[in-house]
Amino acid sequence: MNKKIGKQTIKYGNAPCILSTAAIAGPMEGQGKLGKEFDRLLDDNINGEDSWEKCESYMLGWVIKTAVSKLGIAMEEIDYILAGDLLNQLISSHFAMREIGRPFLGLYGACSTFAESMLVGSALVDGGFAEKIAVGVSSHHDTAERQFRFPTELGVQRPPTSQWTVTGSGSAVIATYGAGPRITIGTIGKIVDLGIKDPNNMGVAMAPAAADTIYNHLTDSKRDPGYYDMIYTGDLGAIGKELTIELLSDKAIDIRKNYEDCGCMIYHEEQDAHAGASGCASSALAFSGYIFKQLQQRKMNRILFVGTGCLHSSTSYQQKESIPCIAHAVAIEN
Amino acid sequence: MNKKIGKQTIKYGNAPCILSTAAIAGPMEGQGKLGKEFDRLLDDNINGEDSWEKCESYMLGWVIKTAVSKLGIAMEEIDYILAGDLLNQLISSHFAMREIGRPFLGLYGACSTFAESMLVGSALVDGGFAEKIAVGVSSHHDTAERQFRFPTELGVQRPPTSQWTVTGSGSAVIATYGAGPRITIGTIGKIVDLGIKDPNNMGVAMAPAAADTIYNHLTDSKRDPGYYDMIYTGDLGAIGKELTIELLSDKAIDIRKNYEDCGCMIYHEEQDAHAGASGCASSALAFSGYIFKQLQQRKMNRILFVGTGCLHSSTSYQQKESIPCIAHAVAIEN
Repeated sequence: MNKKIGKQTIKYGNAPCILSTAAIAGPMEGQGKLGKEFDRLLDDNINGEDSWEKCESYMLGWVIKTAVSKLGIAMEEIDYILAGDLLNQLISSHFAMREIGRPFLGLYGACSTFAESMLVGSALVDGGFAEKIAVGVSSHHDTAERQFRFPTELGVQRPPTSQWTVTGSGSAVIATYGAGPRITIGTIGKIVDLGIKDPNNMGVAMAPAAADTIYNHLTDSKRDPGYYDMIYTGDLGAIGKELTIELLSDKAIDIRKNYEDCGCMIYHEEQDAHAGASGCASSALAFSGYIFKQLQQRKMNRILFVGTGCLHSSTSYQQKESIPCIAHAVAIEN
Repeated sequence: MNKKIGKQTIKYGNAPCILSTAAIAGPMEGQGKLGKEFDRLLDDNINGEDSWEKCESYMLGWVIKTAVSKLGIAMEEIDYILAGDLLNQLISSHFAMREIGRPFLGLYGACSTFAESMLVGSALVDGGFAEKIAVGVSSHHDTAERQFRFPTELGVQRPPTSQWTVTGSGSAVIATYGAGPRITIGTIGKIVDLGIKDPNNMGVAMAPAAADTIYNHLTDSKRDPGYYDMIYTGDLGAIGKELTIELLSDKAIDIRKNYEDCGCMIYHEEQDAHAGASGCASSALAFSGYIFKQLQQRKMNRILFVGTGCLHSSTSYQQKESIPCIAHAVAIEN
């Protein structure tokens, strides 16, 4: 049975169901716009661990265990876990998975990893390879800042285009059967790189990839933007969001009425996050904490969730390379 | 249709077919045991590029394009590409994919990534989500050495347990239909970490994960080791290989007669690679250059290909964490 439609889109034959989600966040995110929606807030960014990295790994383990325990089932009922994070060699995921001990597939799409894990995980479920899987991602302001930019102690001034990496983690359990919103269609992104080299201007770097995936999703699925109650991108921030609207407008696609970026949903203006939130947890917190509940309560019934990722490293930056970007999309519907 | 068998194994309903492979390697690999089997050898480790990283990325792009062109088809006939590498944020893969321009899924399982990409890619093909996909991985001695261990210029003395990261890249095209060996079963690994902290002793770190996956594969599939003409692990080297044999022997499983490690297949003894080869390209070169041809020519008909990965980072090492390891397996049969 051919489940590919159009050029880069797949339609799940038996649309997998999202049974539960869980979200944990740091204190700054707790004071943000969605603070009350998360299952748990940390008192500080280290949570009694030896390092920020261990705190990040702890969060990822916690959300996966919590999303599973909300269903009243044992971890052994989860066939596989798909996860990823921003840290070199995905150490947050690997140390969390070491403790959980389930079969594991590591994915990397930078901040698009949550959407990528839902897309690939749904293929495993729909293809009959699993009954229940869990997906999860994490990010942490302090681990990301010192890995991708400058030592945190330096206190480097941040330009207005910069975004604030979200400290938090989100997860979801996806299954063949059950009650809940269903993942119906996935669009696999291509690498798009229009030459932006500044890791403090990631929204502008990622916007062309987001626009490309949204355009191809709509073309492949023969849907127009109005089909969706909302289209969400992952972490473009205020500047990238406006550029995405413009780029699609150039192709005669108007998403202004029903589009928001998760990077604009996390922090209040006065929290000084500059252009908005970024990091794997930007889209994962918005989805696991807020969007999923809106779908469950049928306040929304059809959304397009577009994970967006900047795929550079500190090495590629130092070697003066531009930033390759990608966006993966999943349609989630009641 | 339930395609899961046992605890962590999937059986492909319509076993996907490996249509072609391609392999490229550096000069030291060219002088090694399999040197004559590769499609192309580089004259040196930089190949006229600005950096070793760009050379690695070039190799990955080259093998994917070559595996596809061997079939006489256009790159546009490849639905998606699944790839990964050892470099932070998978930059080798991302820059290669930027040029190739096909829909792309990034995976990370360290040196198990080639097996992981075959396992996940086969699920996409078998599930009806794609007709043809390409998978590929790369590694490079000089990029890996300076990222994971010491600046190459330091000339740090290597202990006898250390392995030599393979400079090379391998790829495969996997499809629904066609002539060629078929991927019949996949076993998804769990993280295993018995406390080894030394990144110069990776074979010993990975052996328990390899033994765990081989054991669970045999249990889940109800096969005994003798079912396979050969069982190959990815890059355990001489020391890890012996430990894997021992660990399985403790469980009353004897693989001594039909088992080899790809890390022992790349270099001659006198090439001074110490415990053997490592890196994503260890298993990818052995498979794409040699094992695939053996299957095509029916000199072997049933193999178990077990990718093995050390999932540490330089950060986790400096934070005195032990090395989490994983192994993913695919059975490939005529």
